[in-house]
Amino acid sequence: MSLETVLTRIDQDLPDATERLLELLRIPSISTDPKYKGDCQTAADWLVADLQSIGIEAEKRRTPGHPMVVGHVEGDGPHILFYGHYDVQPVDPLGLWDRDPFDPKIETVAGHKVIRGRGASDDKGQLMTFVEACRAWKSVHGTLPCRLTFFFEGEEESGSPSLVPFMKDNADELKSDLALICDTGLFGDSTPAIVTMLRGLLGEELTITGPSKDLHSGMYGGIAMNPARVLAKIIAGLHDDTGRVTVPGFYDGVPELPADVAAQWQGLNFDADSFLGQVGLSAPAGEQDRTPLEMIWSRPTCEVNGITGGYTGDGFKTVLPSQVSAKISFRLVGTQDPHAIRESFRAYVQSMLPPDCKVAFKSHGASPASVMSTDDPAFEAARSALSDEWPNAAAYVGCGGSIPIAGYFKNILGTDAMLIGFGKDDDQIHSPNEKYDLSSFHKGIRSWARILEALTKDT
Amino acid sequence: MSLETVLTRIDQDLPDATERLLELLRIPSISTDPKYKGDCQTAADWLVADLQSIGIEAEKRRTPGHPMVVGHVEGDGPHILFYGHYDVQPVDPLGLWDRDPFDPKIETVAGHKVIRGRGASDDKGQLMTFVEACRAWKSVHGTLPCRLTFFFEGEEESGSPSLVPFMKDNADELKSDLALICDTGLFGDSTPAIVTMLRGLLGEELTITGPSKDLHSGMYGGIAMNPARVLAKIIAGLHDDTGRVTVPGFYDGVPELPADVAAQWQGLNFDADSFLGQVGLSAPAGEQDRTPLEMIWSRPTCEVNGITGGYTGDGFKTVLPSQVSAKISFRLVGTQDPHAIRESFRAYVQSMLPPDCKVAFKSHGASPASVMSTDDPAFEAARSALSDEWPNAAAYVGCGGSIPIAGYFKNILGTDAMLIGFGKDDDQIHSPNEKYDLSSFHKGIRSWARILEALTKDT
Repeated sequence: MSLETVLTRIDQDLPDATERLLELLRIPSISTDPKYKGDCQTAADWLVADLQSIGIEAEKRRTPGHPMVVGHVEGDGPHILFYGHYDVQPVDPLGLWDRDPFDPKIETVAGHKVIRGRGASDDKGQLMTFVEACRAWKSVHGTLPCRLTFFFEGEEESGSPSLVPFMKDNADELKSDLALICDTGLFGDSTPAIVTMLRGLLGEELTITGPSKDLHSGMYGGIAMNPARVLAKIIAGLHDDTGRVTVPGFYDGVPELPADVAAQWQGLNFDADSFLGQVGLSAPAGEQDRTPLEMIWSRPTCEVNGITGGYTGDGFKTVLPSQVSAKISFRLVGTQDPHAIRESFRAYVQSMLPPDCKVAFKSHGASPASVMSTDDPAFEAARSALSDEWPNAAAYVGCGGSIPIAGYFKNILGTDAMLIGFGKDDDQIHSPNEKYDLSSFHKGIRSWARILEALTKDT
Repeated sequence: MSLETVLTRIDQDLPDATERLLELLRIPSISTDPKYKGDCQTAADWLVADLQSIGIEAEKRRTPGHPMVVGHVEGDGPHILFYGHYDVQPVDPLGLWDRDPFDPKIETVAGHKVIRGRGASDDKGQLMTFVEACRAWKSVHGTLPCRLTFFFEGEEESGSPSLVPFMKDNADELKSDLALICDTGLFGDSTPAIVTMLRGLLGEELTITGPSKDLHSGMYGGIAMNPARVLAKIIAGLHDDTGRVTVPGFYDGVPELPADVAAQWQGLNFDADSFLGQVGLSAPAGEQDRTPLEMIWSRPTCEVNGITGGYTGDGFKTVLPSQVSAKISFRLVGTQDPHAIRESFRAYVQSMLPPDCKVAFKSHGASPASVMSTDDPAFEAARSALSDEWPNAAAYVGCGGSIPIAGYFKNILGTDAMLIGFGKDDDQIHSPNEKYDLSSFHKGIRSWARILEALTKDT
């Protein structure tokens, strides 16, 4: 039977596939918040059962944190591993959601259908595109096209603390000829993309303590050190006037973009005005001597992700806070060393402290950037298969986000990873009202069927 | 009957007086939080009933916010008004309290007794010192020593929005020969103080919006304007390296300390090391060319009272926040104009905004500083009476806090105000574990009896 039969089956099964996804989206598997520990277990159980329902030997595997889901099916030809994550981001500020983030629904927006709910795009919807492609393939062919391993993580949104130890402990089992990762996006509505460049991520939390307790700003204001002033100076000093990060040594290992890549990106005609415009912005705010695509794909960043201290409720309280804290993250590129940058950042913070302030640091992950080699013919095969499904040919692109697992596959397992996903810029991942276009879900499933066929047709 | 009889009655009645105070402290009359509106009513009702129980014609008076309590008793001699406030500060962070802030208790700390609970010192305990002095006087003499007006406010901790309109609407009723205000502290453990210099207060809240929604810092980090960076620069720019506030025109109307006052303050031998040491600090952090007492009494300040934005929960979220906000207050001295400074501050903030950021301001009060004239012989009479009660002679001092009502009495009613209180630096007002020494309460009641006698003995 032909690929067309599988694609037809996918089309026919879409309503049921969507129902299955909605079921998974109803499980509030927020990995960073200990309150949802049980829900992460529930999501893993759901996936185990779903894989088993299509004949895959799957099980939940214990880690010190949330469990992994691992499934295997034997077969001829290449051994392909598929990775996705079942955990999701927190949902605050809850007041900005138009519906309960864990009561997902198909909505029609400007004439097209979207699946609305936390995790719809990042990453449950994407993860299920591959599972559904396998389900259709199996139902048509009775078998899957090659040896497959399914590997689902539950800690991607909280720094993946258990991932590296698990990969190391189970390296023989997880080693494969190629890893497929579905956690990225399309380039524009009609152009699928294979990510060949991923930024790394360094997360730091710092808490600055001045006075030993909150003080009355009338009694102590003026004479007592206010740690909010100190934190503001530290943050204000992290960038110079041109948008460059000032942490000493930060740009060590940041490569200039090769001329051929720069030319290819130029050809993508990236519409920065529209990209920024849809979130209410107009001016690229990064390093002023870089192009917009460089700012998000190939240049490193430093961002404040959260800041808090003193009285933050309604009304006013004339308190002089004892403590203030900030969560700060760095996106890394090239061969920037996250550990060296962490040390340099911490030394910078220490250097900014006046005598009466002290700082405590908390690490929230440190992973380097990844750059894929497109020499492997699988890349061109996948690009061609994707190009068959979508209006425009598929492009090799960069990705501003950090998917450190791509680097782990290479460094720990020796496996090349290929990142293909169907998210859109307006999916509002990590934000209120996250959605996944029904067309992303549908064409995503179809894309994987095409790619599976392309990667295995010579066997 | 003599003053001694009244003082003896006060000593005998102390256990009952303490019980009454504990009852008042159990009412969570947090004025800034709408949730406690009913409790503010309850506190006002309690005070009305208590005043009535000592023969004062008292009633709760409606305002657009929390009610005023006003009581009158007729009599000969000077008309004296007493002011205090029955509302209290919020109690967060609740986790830092050693007990329920509204389940007050007498505790023994290092051999001396303290009344522990929110409002014990600020200002319910202080307010009740005067009420209890009147109760004892009445029970000994059968009458009070002069015409008295009691005036209790319920919005002092939230900017007193109803106070000025109420004073204007009821000016004839509230006009008196002298106003007594009990909301300040001792100078050291053994030295009572009359405050003759009070800082004003300007409260501003600013919210800076960058992108129209929270963004994924991977997808948008680098290219999108992060409002936390902007807020940090604004705050970092509010002080120069010597601790001076940089808002243009800020120091207009800030007087140099007169030589005689400077000399008197020098004589107080203020122990800045110990004042700072008890809150874990060592170095005066204000304008580096000023003395510690100037920093807290006679120099203006700018402080961050609260800051928040982005993800502030446990763990890490790689969000790029849409909004960040800060509560900032200025303590004012001399003839600094709060309205002019507000305009200048807002213009400074606007000048710091990059193209893609906007700011919204919220005002939280604007009151100028007050400087009392000690020429009125009542000041010397009160100082002498206070000196009789305490180990050391009473001092004229400044106060870093803002009690704008002192200025209102002068400007609206033409009445001079005298600020006398018995709080201590370690009372932890506005902080967790607020307390009031039982000796402050006891000797405070005795002090008011002596002052009432001194102010009325010639009539």
